Amino acid sequence: MATPTQSARPSPERIFGVLNAFQSSAALKTAIELGIFTAIAEGVDRASVIALRVNAAERGVRILCDYLTIHGFLIKADDRYVLTQESAIFLSRHSPAYMGTLADFLVSEAHKRNFDALTETVRKGGTAVAQGDNTKPNDELWVTFARTMAPLTTVSAGFIAELAGAKEGRACKVLDIAAGHGMFGITIAKQNPNAQITAVDWAPVLAVAKQNAAAAGVADRVALRPGSAFEADLGDGYDIVLLTNIFHHFDMPTCEKLMRRVHGALKPGGRAITLEFVPNEDRVTPPTAAAFSLIMLAGTDAGDAYTFSEYEKMFQNVGFVMTTLHPVPDMPQQVLLTEK
Amino acid sequence: MATPTQSARPSPERIFGVLNAFQSSAALKTAIELGIFTAIAEGVDRASVIALRVNAAERGVRILCDYLTIHGFLIKADDRYVLTQESAIFLSRHSPAYMGTLADFLVSEAHKRNFDALTETVRKGGTAVAQGDNTKPNDELWVTFARTMAPLTTVSAGFIAELAGAKEGRACKVLDIAAGHGMFGITIAKQNPNAQITAVDWAPVLAVAKQNAAAAGVADRVALRPGSAFEADLGDGYDIVLLTNIFHHFDMPTCEKLMRRVHGALKPGGRAITLEFVPNEDRVTPPTAAAFSLIMLAGTDAGDAYTFSEYEKMFQNVGFVMTTLHPVPDMPQQVLLTEK
Repeated sequence: MATPTQSARPSPERIFGVLNAFQSSAALKTAIELGIFTAIAEGVDRASVIALRVNAAERGVRILCDYLTIHGFLIKADDRYVLTQESAIFLSRHSPAYMGTLADFLVSEAHKRNFDALTETVRKGGTAVAQGDNTKPNDELWVTFARTMAPLTTVSAGFIAELAGAKEGRACKVLDIAAGHGMFGITIAKQNPNAQITAVDWAPVLAVAKQNAAAAGVADRVALRPGSAFEADLGDGYDIVLLTNIFHHFDMPTCEKLMRRVHGALKPGGRAITLEFVPNEDRVTPPTAAAFSLIMLAGTDAGDAYTFSEYEKMFQNVGFVMTTLHPVPDMPQQVLLTEK
Repeated sequence: MATPTQSARPSPERIFGVLNAFQSSAALKTAIELGIFTAIAEGVDRASVIALRVNAAERGVRILCDYLTIHGFLIKADDRYVLTQESAIFLSRHSPAYMGTLADFLVSEAHKRNFDALTETVRKGGTAVAQGDNTKPNDELWVTFARTMAPLTTVSAGFIAELAGAKEGRACKVLDIAAGHGMFGITIAKQNPNAQITAVDWAPVLAVAKQNAAAAGVADRVALRPGSAFEADLGDGYDIVLLTNIFHHFDMPTCEKLMRRVHGALKPGGRAITLEFVPNEDRVTPPTAAAFSLIMLAGTDAGDAYTFSEYEKMFQNVGFVMTTLHPVPDMPQQVLLTEK
């Protein structure tokens, strides 16, 4: 949405802006799809030339680039556009931190459908359109997730590897639940040559993790266990179990069911490492973590963004002894470190 | 979108927020549809009770109200929600300034479709899906506009009536081009008992204007001329011609064609009053006016948000002598006053 004009008197401008906010998601996705940021990173800077480079109409590119400037993704000087620092780092395909692929998951038809049905969903109290039971496979959604969302994990995967003491290099058995792209376990395996990773997810999703493990040169230390985290044989004796972005899909009894399985798979003194959107107890701060709850309302039967005290209690209920909270630097997520 | 956490180091949080921004449009629309703001205005304040009142699930209402709080439309204290000043004024059905109906037009299926096709549209340089030629009738769209968007005009219609000197009460012939809901002409007629309004629009749209004129008690002074502003007999000898939110749908030659007709319909010394989103010459400020250009890209063949110098030149080209710019207080639009 456009930044509202600050005014002491009440104005409908912000309401107008939020009702139009869906346009900003579409505009950013389109710019990523067309490669606008990549073209500018390569040195073209006028709408006419960018248009030639990305195979689009000058009028379309001019209006889109102006809009991206209004929303802070470009800087315009006269009729030349340059990348902001953030766009150069995250939106140019030439950047190692490129995360344009996120648009394919976050602004997918599936997510848009969920929000098109939001009124019915609020009436019902759970998703009115999606397959809302995430204990069942949903290959199309989760393969897309695995293929597109890995770039968002770089910082948090590094942070988790550090919490796991990966660089100390001790022999370490790691279970990666709902591994998806596998990057959390793979990052530990890259930093610790004595780490053995076991990745659990649906088979088509694990195929993506397998590719990523091979690309990282750690495929020989990443074992795959296809199946449901709620039903597959997880093995046991793990030093660490990774639970990244999984609990928010379920109601509390289902979370506890998974936690109980994790508790059984850990060796004494082992640790569960949970990556989550964890709002404060008021459930309305910090904004990105708290707002995540609506995505779960829209797309699941009973998932939520749980608070720290809720996580602490659930882990306690199944026998864990202590949970501590660790914000991921510069990211909206937090890590819960829970000891068996 | 959620307000990004301010950070000195680059973070993908804002990109994540903008890709998710479509959710905020859906959430506000849903809250309006369910009557959440109206229920709170009536004095209920807990999710459980609001849920009963609006016939929805408590879980859905709790998560939605938290989300509305994050986005500044509610205030939460413990587990009670209260309206912000802005929500009380514009989003409760009990308020005379209620404008919840805007959601039906701004977040309509038609507009969402336009933005779903934005990539193709940017490639083409004009809408890839909509009927992009607004010289042709499009009853469904414009009847919805006329039925829903009138509340947004209260301030600007009052401002225009003032510029038109309505309260001075002189005999005055006013032509309202693309009248829609008719509220711009009707406001003048209400303030000036000696004003005669002629409203031009497609017949099904004028039916809405006719209802509004009757409700305002000025139907006897609002004549209807159904048809195209480009083809209908407009009459002549007008003191004032109103051109509200019309030029942005067309390319410059088409704007000039309409301006030339308006020039012919005005009496010597008459004035054209244009209400528009008028970005500065840089085309990226102020944000709401400048961002409007993307809506025209998405939904028209060749419309745009024109700058003041572009309007000034077009009016000059068809024989007008002077154009001045007048910001509408507390609103993102501006008025151009042009003398014949």
